Amino acid sequence: MPWAELSPCPRALTAVFNLMAMAKVFDRVNIIDILCFTIPLELIQIVVLCWWLSAQILVPIANGTEEMEAIMIIDILRRAKANVVVASLEDKLEIVASRKVKMVADVLLDEAVKQQYDLILLPGGLGGAEAYSKSDKLMGLIKKQAEANKLYGAICASPAIALEPHGLLKGKKATSYPAMWNKLADQSECNNRVVVDGNLITSQGPGTSVEFALAIVEKLFGREKALELAKILVFV
Amino acid sequence: MPWAELSPCPRALTAVFNLMAMAKVFDRVNIIDILCFTIPLELIQIVVLCWWLSAQILVPIANGTEEMEAIMIIDILRRAKANVVVASLEDKLEIVASRKVKMVADVLLDEAVKQQYDLILLPGGLGGAEAYSKSDKLMGLIKKQAEANKLYGAICASPAIALEPHGLLKGKKATSYPAMWNKLADQSECNNRVVVDGNLITSQGPGTSVEFALAIVEKLFGREKALELAKILVFV
Ligand SMILES: [Cu+]
Repeated sequence: MPWAELSPCPRALTAVFNLMAMAKVFDRVNIIDILCFTIPLELIQIVVLCWWLSAQILVPIANGTEEMEAIMIIDILRRAKANVVVASLEDKLEIVASRKVKMVADVLLDEAVKQQYDLILLPGGLGGAEAYSKSDKLMGLIKKQAEANKLYGAICASPAIALEPHGLLKGKKATSYPAMWNKLADQSECNNRVVVDGNLITSQGPGTSVEFALAIVEKLFGREKALELAKILVFV
Repeated sequence: MPWAELSPCPRALTAVFNLMAMAKVFDRVNIIDILCFTIPLELIQIVVLCWWLSAQILVPIANGTEEMEAIMIIDILRRAKANVVVASLEDKLEIVASRKVKMVADVLLDEAVKQQYDLILLPGGLGGAEAYSKSDKLMGLIKKQAEANKLYGAICASPAIALEPHGLLKGKKATSYPAMWNKLADQSECNNRVVVDGNLITSQGPGTSVEFALAIVEKLFGREKALELAKILVFV
């Protein structure tokens, strides 16, 4: 079918809206599977729908963010087909990361907080973690996320510096960068490289970032997808 | 000593120039050790000297570069105190990496090729590797590097797509991204995660990037430094 002939098809559109409603009830990924195999939707409608159904993830960055941790999270979750929004806490999109790598965010945080996310993930880096902790807007968003029992996570300095002081590790098992374990109220599971406790996922540092990202992929998209990605990345 | 009192000290300057000459003969790292413990140089002179003595590393990036591979190489080598120059092959500093992360280089390649490097490292990513292969300036620089028996390396798509077609793996053991092993003339050591053959270092993909960077740290700064960094990164 040539592109020029694409036009809204009432039957397909109705199906889309029904499925969007169903998607709020059932598992999103399964809905995409059903769609792709059973309903002859026009390509453009499928693209729009898939975007709507794909996991929305917020990754805030700031001057001093650990670039390895940020990039591994963003890259691996985009490979898993999540919709990752990179938001700058600075007053411009460009940030200077902890080892002087310059990264350009997709949006400013002020813009990013207007949306809702399936998951909010904080990379580490001391300067970045301190900036997260000082941002009322970001901390407010993560508190709402926690109250709604939605997913959030942090790695390296961020669990200890950003989540703990705001009560976001309360009653939860978590880990952080080893030199910062002493800042955590509950250190009982600290020595795990990745800790998943319900809707909270934490990890230790740059060298555990791939495991952290893959644990998130497993949580969002299942173990099979995580193992597939681990192989594609030549991690295993 | 207050900063305002800093002034060139003839004795120290003479020592610096003698040591700069010695550094060309002896191991650079050892010279820094000698300096730091035996000669009372003014702080600013030490900083200038250390910059001159530190390993100069070129990391080219282009649209389509694998961001994880680029960032892990840059970050880990900067943590090892190497002087890493990130150079863009595009006509501006900002590039869009393989998973849409936007990175800003330090200089354009045209500027970067005017200098000499102790090591030139190519991250992977198909689009990036193809851009490296098409750049006469970059390939010319790496050929000179190889002829002078100086260090160069590549990971993922780049050994197969950029080095092999330009004869830069000739007579060398190397590896590349597994799906591209069939492009290598000598596949006898392919299944190693990192291959060091004299002045050439190659590796397989995103998931082997930390090992790749640490193998380079070991080559430049010794095994102890590599192990220390592996611990700081929480890689081991
Ligand atoms: Cu690659």
